[in-house]
Amino acid sequence: MDEFTLINKIKQSSYRQSSLLKGVGDDAAVFRMSQGDLVTATDVFVENVHFSRKTMNPKQIGYRALAVNFSDLAAMGAEPMFYLVSIVVPERWKQEIQSIFMGMDELASEYQADLIGGDTVSGEDLMISINVIGRVDQGRARYRHEAKPGDLVFVTGTLGDSRAGLHILQSDQKYEQADYFIKRHRYPTPRIHFSLGLRDIDRIALNDISDGIVSEAAEIAEASEVNLILEEESLPVSKAFEQFTEKERVDWKLYGGEDFELLAVTAEENWASIKDIAKETDTRVTRIGYVEALEEESKDRLYLVKKGKRQPISKRGYRHLT
Amino acid sequence: MDEFTLINKIKQSSYRQSSLLKGVGDDAAVFRMSQGDLVTATDVFVENVHFSRKTMNPKQIGYRALAVNFSDLAAMGAEPMFYLVSIVVPERWKQEIQSIFMGMDELASEYQADLIGGDTVSGEDLMISINVIGRVDQGRARYRHEAKPGDLVFVTGTLGDSRAGLHILQSDQKYEQADYFIKRHRYPTPRIHFSLGLRDIDRIALNDISDGIVSEAAEIAEASEVNLILEEESLPVSKAFEQFTEKERVDWKLYGGEDFELLAVTAEENWASIKDIAKETDTRVTRIGYVEALEEESKDRLYLVKKGKRQPISKRGYRHLT
Repeated sequence: MDEFTLINKIKQSSYRQSSLLKGVGDDAAVFRMSQGDLVTATDVFVENVHFSRKTMNPKQIGYRALAVNFSDLAAMGAEPMFYLVSIVVPERWKQEIQSIFMGMDELASEYQADLIGGDTVSGEDLMISINVIGRVDQGRARYRHEAKPGDLVFVTGTLGDSRAGLHILQSDQKYEQADYFIKRHRYPTPRIHFSLGLRDIDRIALNDISDGIVSEAAEIAEASEVNLILEEESLPVSKAFEQFTEKERVDWKLYGGEDFELLAVTAEENWASIKDIAKETDTRVTRIGYVEALEEESKDRLYLVKKGKRQPISKRGYRHLT
Repeated sequence: MDEFTLINKIKQSSYRQSSLLKGVGDDAAVFRMSQGDLVTATDVFVENVHFSRKTMNPKQIGYRALAVNFSDLAAMGAEPMFYLVSIVVPERWKQEIQSIFMGMDELASEYQADLIGGDTVSGEDLMISINVIGRVDQGRARYRHEAKPGDLVFVTGTLGDSRAGLHILQSDQKYEQADYFIKRHRYPTPRIHFSLGLRDIDRIALNDISDGIVSEAAEIAEASEVNLILEEESLPVSKAFEQFTEKERVDWKLYGGEDFELLAVTAEENWASIKDIAKETDTRVTRIGYVEALEEESKDRLYLVKKGKRQPISKRGYRHLT
């Protein structure tokens, strides 16, 4: 399949965003924004680093790659509008490229987002690079540096499920609710609806959990120049999570990553409204900690309270599949 | 070098675009547009497909990759504002990533554009995916489908130089003005200034010459549903181009590609203004053909006039280095 044939196969038959003036088919796409701010991010996915054919089919790979990008928009309080895809395609993947794009479109259609550009080239390793563009009401982008002493910390959903799903996919053992965990790994839910629901909250710091909650909490603490304290016993996990060993549970909920839940820090006075928004958008929210002023003599920013004992906890690098 | 160290090394110390609210350092970048339309495109570059270490150093690779993207903006009549870079880095390239980004910044600084996001991952093959975002006055994006019967066709600069430069780089022979051709290959000039100068021209179709003039002319003819006639004797080449064989000359100027000049189609009445704009922006422009109404009985859209004889000419696929 040459590039031209591929473009015609993946090109949307119609576009959903009224602001789009020109989609696929010229040197670039064109759109018009009259109100609000624009938000843009990019993520790259490489076979056997970010995903494997053994644990996901092409459609799932596409869905998940776009979900990861949409999650970045959710973490900024933005709604998805457009995405562009650059893809390097090895011979052995040629027949399945269309399925990858179908997986993306399945997610995109949920949020009325449009594929408006891309580039394709042959190569040795399957590589997918996605750029997303979204919008947020003027001045309402949600930054990491907005946390303040006295704030509460909360998280959406449950932690460690995606890592558990990957474990199950790579294991021969039988597990309870295996389908649930596998689905959470393959089809993460970017928390767009919940994030958009927060539009009237004056100040809230958001981060999406791609690299594990410890890493994301440390980023907020560093950017905001505060101490952030997480209470281990409060970290939400799903019921069937209990079947895993203690070591697995601790490791996965703290460092597992790729749950694409939102970690948030905001003033105590907003908590009641946030619980209402969570109910309206069918999102579980759990308080998991609080923020204190930075202690000048210490260089630690992030602490974990475990069985009443408070200890500094260090950000650990994200570990890829390989 | 881990990702965090890399980001700090490549992060601009200050930003040039006043519309930028947040650059590198959160889940996404944020900017505000009050007027005009937005233009966005993406291109991907793979080692030994689009570039080779044998013919370009890391800084040149970066410069050229961004120039190719800026050329897409020029072909839409847009000025560059922002770019995002996804990069897959093999171990053997780790030390040179910073130079690649320095090459990009060299070009970006000429147009006051900012690097506002990116993603880095380890992998087997060096791959660079760039997304550019630009702006154009409202309703002034330049599309391929704007050509009309009676229009004239012109091109900026000279054709085939980039392909000649690559030939010289891969050859042991001595050539006249080798430095000129090599520079045209390594440092293509996106025709941004000329393209922006056209802002008062009511209607003009533009395409940038990435895949050779025949391919680009065919795209305009197809999108506009017209016949487009190119006069081979009019195609502009540089003086030292004569040293190459006739076969090379014909091949390179028609199909060589990667000159990143602009191919344009507009009404006869605009020609005088266009020559003025060309003079002001120090750009050579040459009339090279004209547009006729589509002949219904023929499926050919593109013709080449050679020694007074007119023949249909078919679009040929772009041939990569390997």
